[in-house]
Amino acid sequence: MMGHNKNFDIPKEMGAWVLNDPDNINIVKKPVPQPKEGEVLLKIDAVAICATDLEIISHGNPARIEGELPFNKNYSPGHEAMGRVVKLGEGVTEFKLGDRVAVEIHAGCGRCEMCRKGWYTSCLNYGFASKGHKANGFTTDGAFAEYMTNRTQTLVHVPDDMSDEEATLAVTAGTSMYTLDVMGGLFAGQTMVVTGPGPIGLCAVGVASALGAEVVLTGTRDNRLEIGKKLGANHVVNVKKQNPVEFVRDLTCGIGAHYVLECSGAANAINDASAMIRRGGKIGLAAFPSKPVEVDIANLVRNNAYIYATRGEGKSACHRAMALMAQKRFDAKLIHTHTFPMKDLQTGLKYTRERIEDAIKVVVRNDERLI
Amino acid sequence: MMGHNKNFDIPKEMGAWVLNDPDNINIVKKPVPQPKEGEVLLKIDAVAICATDLEIISHGNPARIEGELPFNKNYSPGHEAMGRVVKLGEGVTEFKLGDRVAVEIHAGCGRCEMCRKGWYTSCLNYGFASKGHKANGFTTDGAFAEYMTNRTQTLVHVPDDMSDEEATLAVTAGTSMYTLDVMGGLFAGQTMVVTGPGPIGLCAVGVASALGAEVVLTGTRDNRLEIGKKLGANHVVNVKKQNPVEFVRDLTCGIGAHYVLECSGAANAINDASAMIRRGGKIGLAAFPSKPVEVDIANLVRNNAYIYATRGEGKSACHRAMALMAQKRFDAKLIHTHTFPMKDLQTGLKYTRERIEDAIKVVVRNDERLI
Amino acid sequence: MMGHNKNFDIPKEMGAWVLNDPDNINIVKKPVPQPKEGEVLLKIDAVAICATDLEIISHGNPARIEGELPFNKNYSPGHEAMGRVVKLGEGVTEFKLGDRVAVEIHAGCGRCEMCRKGWYTSCLNYGFASKGHKANGFTTDGAFAEYMTNRTQTLVHVPDDMSDEEATLAVTAGTSMYTLDVMGGLFAGQTMVVTGPGPIGLCAVGVASALGAEVVLTGTRDNRLEIGKKLGANHVVNVKKQNPVEFVRDLTCGIGAHYVLECSGAANAINDASAMIRRGGKIGLAAFPSKPVEVDIANLVRNNAYIYATRGEGKSACHRAMALMAQKRFDAKLIHTHTFPMKDLQTGLKYTRERIEDAIKVVVRNDERLI
Amino acid sequence: MMGHNKNFDIPKEMGAWVLNDPDNINIVKKPVPQPKEGEVLLKIDAVAICATDLEIISHGNPARIEGELPFNKNYSPGHEAMGRVVKLGEGVTEFKLGDRVAVEIHAGCGRCEMCRKGWYTSCLNYGFASKGHKANGFTTDGAFAEYMTNRTQTLVHVPDDMSDEEATLAVTAGTSMYTLDVMGGLFAGQTMVVTGPGPIGLCAVGVASALGAEVVLTGTRDNRLEIGKKLGANHVVNVKKQNPVEFVRDLTCGIGAHYVLECSGAANAINDASAMIRRGGKIGLAAFPSKPVEVDIANLVRNNAYIYATRGEGKSACHRAMALMAQKRFDAKLIHTHTFPMKDLQTGLKYTRERIEDAIKVVVRNDERLI
Repeated sequence: MMGHNKNFDIPKEMGAWVLNDPDNINIVKKPVPQPKEGEVLLKIDAVAICATDLEIISHGNPARIEGELPFNKNYSPGHEAMGRVVKLGEGVTEFKLGDRVAVEIHAGCGRCEMCRKGWYTSCLNYGFASKGHKANGFTTDGAFAEYMTNRTQTLVHVPDDMSDEEATLAVTAGTSMYTLDVMGGLFAGQTMVVTGPGPIGLCAVGVASALGAEVVLTGTRDNRLEIGKKLGANHVVNVKKQNPVEFVRDLTCGIGAHYVLECSGAANAINDASAMIRRGGKIGLAAFPSKPVEVDIANLVRNNAYIYATRGEGKSACHRAMALMAQKRFDAKLIHTHTFPMKDLQTGLKYTRERIEDAIKVVVRNDERLI
Repeated sequence: MMGHNKNFDIPKEMGAWVLNDPDNINIVKKPVPQPKEGEVLLKIDAVAICATDLEIISHGNPARIEGELPFNKNYSPGHEAMGRVVKLGEGVTEFKLGDRVAVEIHAGCGRCEMCRKGWYTSCLNYGFASKGHKANGFTTDGAFAEYMTNRTQTLVHVPDDMSDEEATLAVTAGTSMYTLDVMGGLFAGQTMVVTGPGPIGLCAVGVASALGAEVVLTGTRDNRLEIGKKLGANHVVNVKKQNPVEFVRDLTCGIGAHYVLECSGAANAINDASAMIRRGGKIGLAAFPSKPVEVDIANLVRNNAYIYATRGEGKSACHRAMALMAQKRFDAKLIHTHTFPMKDLQTGLKYTRERIEDAIKVVVRNDERLI
Repeated sequence: MMGHNKNFDIPKEMGAWVLNDPDNINIVKKPVPQPKEGEVLLKIDAVAICATDLEIISHGNPARIEGELPFNKNYSPGHEAMGRVVKLGEGVTEFKLGDRVAVEIHAGCGRCEMCRKGWYTSCLNYGFASKGHKANGFTTDGAFAEYMTNRTQTLVHVPDDMSDEEATLAVTAGTSMYTLDVMGGLFAGQTMVVTGPGPIGLCAVGVASALGAEVVLTGTRDNRLEIGKKLGANHVVNVKKQNPVEFVRDLTCGIGAHYVLECSGAANAINDASAMIRRGGKIGLAAFPSKPVEVDIANLVRNNAYIYATRGEGKSACHRAMALMAQKRFDAKLIHTHTFPMKDLQTGLKYTRERIEDAIKVVVRNDERLI
Repeated sequence: MMGHNKNFDIPKEMGAWVLNDPDNINIVKKPVPQPKEGEVLLKIDAVAICATDLEIISHGNPARIEGELPFNKNYSPGHEAMGRVVKLGEGVTEFKLGDRVAVEIHAGCGRCEMCRKGWYTSCLNYGFASKGHKANGFTTDGAFAEYMTNRTQTLVHVPDDMSDEEATLAVTAGTSMYTLDVMGGLFAGQTMVVTGPGPIGLCAVGVASALGAEVVLTGTRDNRLEIGKKLGANHVVNVKKQNPVEFVRDLTCGIGAHYVLECSGAANAINDASAMIRRGGKIGLAAFPSKPVEVDIANLVRNNAYIYATRGEGKSACHRAMALMAQKRFDAKLIHTHTFPMKDLQTGLKYTRERIEDAIKVVVRNDERLI
């Protein structure tokens, strides 16, 4: 039974994976952190590995703008986490000891103009912990560790009947949900193209389908597309075999889709999106090519397109994503393919990087002490 | 006195500039059109020439998507018009004979999904007059003629103390207003960069400044920038002499502007916009480069940027623009530089094309019969 | 088989229920109407009876404002209809002969300020057919007749596997959907109280539940509440047995619900709603008491409440409602209890008025000629 | 010169007006508070007295919901304040010593659902300082004191050329601005009725007029209405002499106003508003009658009215209001009628309560030590 024993033994020290120079990440012994006012201490149970973790570990935080933030070292990456509340900071009554929670990545400074209007994932003090900003595993200590502190606003309750592994996917699904929210959120009966069947794309299929959209998923790998179908995609297009723009225009009697949510990062993705949407259509960008690409801006303007480039999981989207998962409106577990102990993080990273055994989401579990 | 004599003599025939093949436009004698139900007949008084008229006359409607609409011929261009109501179609009580009105370009079909939600400039039946769509001077007969029929929804009252020439600018100002509306409309105290001091950019300066924004105008010609200052720009940057991205970042303590409204069509404009805005900033596109350009999409995503590519003067923006003009919140007349009789349309087009005598807005007046 | 025979025999004359003075409604023989440009002729198959039909027939259009619209007579009521397209007006290509369609009530004038921004159910020319406004069965001929003409923008495709009777409920569900849309539409995981288990309340339960809300339904009749459960309500409260405000505050740890959608018209409903919501909560009004009632406005302001009083089924909400019904996300058929031939309309009205045999939605079918 | 001497002598102790039981407020000597992380210490220069201060002092915080918050005592009221930054808490770089600032009332907890979406004036932890909520002069120590601490997010820069007295009005104008923002913010050329020429109503006139609305102000006192004209009202109606509903309907050709912003608290105000607006019109509630009143809800629904009951000065509205004041778009100084030394607060309260010498805004200045 979860939570029946509220006397949590919290050690003085813990093991944590700590990143030094690029690609140099090791287990280090360090004090268990203490929750400050408005924070809780979490015992980490499970953490999903994100492609961004690979990027962070090898090249640094992709969110940083050149010259603004240095390569972040001497801290723990890991940002798709869940665990149990084992200690309450001052003033915390929203959660109690033993609560199982998933953790949103971003806590804004609360004082800049963006935070004041609720755009906390675009905090103008991004990266400045001294101003109160926190992005787990990006700019502050994350979840590849035995314990982590977090502010209450980042926590989402996990239902009793949901596994730890599934719960780690709330952040991925919340990221998809955020872009969908921003694009409008009233999808029932409308056509939504999701380009790229990575974890965010697949979760987007699940969420959009749960909300009533007619979903087209495009990608290059049939096995991923098959998972997309199980998550609710009405149509899948293997772009190696079929022209996705033509497919979408045919499907929509030549008018084009209402929405394209781009999750592939492919070089031509935005032009394809522009060619797929109808006049007044909306494009969400949850991925991007690493280098500048040629874009036909004229066609975007002709189509009166709106483009929403989103960061993270704002607008409390993780709560909405978790609600749909709890109601079993889509089966996020389909995305989880492998599990390793947290001490084998390196293996997990390797599986993720090399897509060994068709790995999609690899989860590391913190069941045995790291030290 | 305007309107004191309501017995308008309407001839049977009129002169109209009619476009045939590219660059072949001539005065033709044709019957004066009759207003249908919900329409009025306008005696045209003045029409401003838009850069898009040059494009339409030489290359066709820029809104058309390849293969969708052919080069439109045997019709009259001209879409920045004002005139007097001289005949009422059935069921029209909103206007009376003699009313002076400016004319919005677009009337949607009223039945497609976009029109049903009020996005009539993105009508899914664009170009299909048989479905009820109308875009004066783009897809249906426009204002380079003695008379024109229009639906009542496209008409905006002109105040008695406003000149005909100023009234023609309501469409340009309405186009700027539309993008500003879409970007949020609450600008007081916020930083708005307008790139490109053409007529739409200059009107955008006027409108944004009237609404309380701190406006930065960038361009290449000092005389245009000077007019921008008179229209309310707080800062001007001649990009030949100063780096506009650095200027904006310095002005905003490194954070970046809230908004960039791109009106230049320059190849690097969108990357500059992306570098000028703050996280969560918004970019409006009222112009575009004719060919695909390199875009750093990663930076847009890092900045959580939203991009609004707009078409035309939707959301009744002409009414709001005209209201600010009527209240003399900005002086649109500064943009009007030349006037010719309508029969000298070719001269007007030449002045516009070649920017003779620093022409900005050239107006043609319909004071004497064309035939 | 639907639609296999496209040679529809359309008679010259039809039977239609025509309202004269209050409560005086009879079958009359009249010419079958002809579809104008942008219209289709429908052969009516089924029409659901709405409580508003009773109101219209006995007291006139409830939407009319005193002195503005007279008691509407010499026309046919009936506004929750479906049928088949049997003739196309000029310019119609969106639909083809034989298409099964449900019909939205409102077509706006398309030219007033409200229509221009997409609020066609609040058309400023409401009731003025000469301006192009149409509200089937309210201000213009409705569906208690063998045939009806309609503009294409009011038509929603009916899936092949949906019964005629279920399809008539698209308007009711669309009305619920509209208020839900206006209240925000992002409900997953949020608490929505629906007060009043009439057809609109029950459809609201279905829609809100399909979109992931945690739904509380309140009412006075256990059988209706049971149907609410089948439509997805997570909690039901019989207000004769339990205090609904206390229930909602307990359920939400004292904070209150996110949303209340009032569908009862009860005298104290708005005060209850105000007491049920959290700070910043939203109240939708889809019903109203016929006489002025005491309202504690101070509490609304303390709660920073927003109240959305909606009319009809705007924002293309019928399309979204129909999409959820087509996907079988909720079972609207549960609301349909009785069917009569259209010539027995009086019996249907009586069942609806007196709730004979617990009637909820009574449908009349047009299978045999009325004349 | 402001701020040229940055060596601020901060005493150990200060005088502060402290409220005990209802109507019992006295100067008390107490330690000068110390700014915590993210806070600054302000030397108060001037504070405007609000009608709500009278309410707070005599009856308690009007925002409290019965049984939720007790009568707040042993603290200092005063919430329309400005002063100088004299000490910086840890991590504060946004402000420097000597900066002149006006102060927003509300700082949310930053962790509840409302704060996360930017609705910090509707914080679900309202009144719980232990959770991080703060409402100056309502729930935490306010400005009727020599010094006050504040979080940086509540501070708005005061331009050098603006007097202290004018700067205190930023909160009042921000409160008006907030409701205007929420109602839509795109007012140019639209009709806005402001009912009640108190300070919030008069500021609303100034703001709405600056944004291009056609403003009608209604009230009972001609001298207040005259000030309204100077602030930009296009029309004023003394409701003792003229029926304001008839006036508005005549002005709008019978259609009704786009917006009514109710600032009077009169018993029939909401019914009048409902009768004044057009279909689809919006009503803002910035005031309310203390007791329940009869409301004709049917008319609200017929009109498809949306009602926005707002609290405080959210959405960073004070920044926008201050920007318009700094640009001299309206003259808030017209509202300021009297000034007293802070030690004569009781006189100021009396002038406000009894409207002595037609007092509107009475300001108390902190120029000499209170102790």
